[in-house]
Amino acid sequence: MFYDITVVQASKMLGNLKAMLEKAAEFAEAKKIEPEVLLTSRLAPDQFSLIRQIQICCDTAKLGAARLAGKSDSAPKHEDTETTLDELYARIAAVQDYLATYSAADFVDTASKEISLPWLDGKKMLGSTFAVSFVIPNLYFHVTTAYAILRHNGVDVGKLDYLGSIPFVE
Amino acid sequence: MFYDITVVQASKMLGNLKAMLEKAAEFAEAKKIEPEVLLTSRLAPDQFSLIRQIQICCDTAKLGAARLAGKSDSAPKHEDTETTLDELYARIAAVQDYLATYSAADFVDTASKEISLPWLDGKKMLGSTFAVSFVIPNLYFHVTTAYAILRHNGVDVGKLDYLGSIPFVE
Repeated sequence: MFYDITVVQASKMLGNLKAMLEKAAEFAEAKKIEPEVLLTSRLAPDQFSLIRQIQICCDTAKLGAARLAGKSDSAPKHEDTETTLDELYARIAAVQDYLATYSAADFVDTASKEISLPWLDGKKMLGSTFAVSFVIPNLYFHVTTAYAILRHNGVDVGKLDYLGSIPFVE
Repeated sequence: MFYDITVVQASKMLGNLKAMLEKAAEFAEAKKIEPEVLLTSRLAPDQFSLIRQIQICCDTAKLGAARLAGKSDSAPKHEDTETTLDELYARIAAVQDYLATYSAADFVDTASKEISLPWLDGKKMLGSTFAVSFVIPNLYFHVTTAYAILRHNGVDVGKLDYLGSIPFVE
């Protein structure tokens, strides 16, 4: 279940995010504006811009899986220097490639594992808590905020772009 | 795990949503505006207003748990007639009370259960798919969109209001 939610589904959401950014690129072209206008947009003056939202989506997915599997050192490093759509696509792809290195077996001990968080003075959280109360809500928060910034600016994205394809029973 | 995510965590997120609405009420009072100005706000002309976002948060939580547990008929009915904060608080509380009737035992068969969705012409989805690809992303989508509408209008909400309290290991 941790694998399904924090690896498979996280990778899918990153793909959905990329598809929404491709719609943003089409929108920018049609409106004859630079895509960077959208990438630096935000919904409030003290909110992170779209570019930062995308970087955080990537980090939440990458570090969420890494910490839950006890493999933090294996996560690729990113310097948060992206300024263009192509650079953001590359970052998304790098995280998807990294997530693809995991399998369900990496998460057998996750629920009861104590996870120490560097930005919380070493406070510890159970793996199940970290996944349910932190990684999952954060991932969707930043994907949805990215969506909301695009939507507010007039890009034609809708709920189905956010959800992506749903696998039905055959 | 289904219980933790779609009942316990969903109820917590509804509580966080209520706390954000209380901040919106304080903001409206300080600005001497009617709270309904916020409740009818949206980020794009063809987006659901804040009031509808809150109703959908409630329905996603209520019907998500009910369908995953195979108890759809037990979910309380709501007519989507709320227009005030107090009415929305009451709806949130009703759903939290309903979620409190569940226990982990209600979800033992969920993963492999075939769930039929009335709005999809009876197409079926595995319980695990329905939870991971649909209920969870939808719940966070609408809570985050509610947050984004408030944030865009100047209400002082931040990530910690959205996440709520995080239980650390003692």
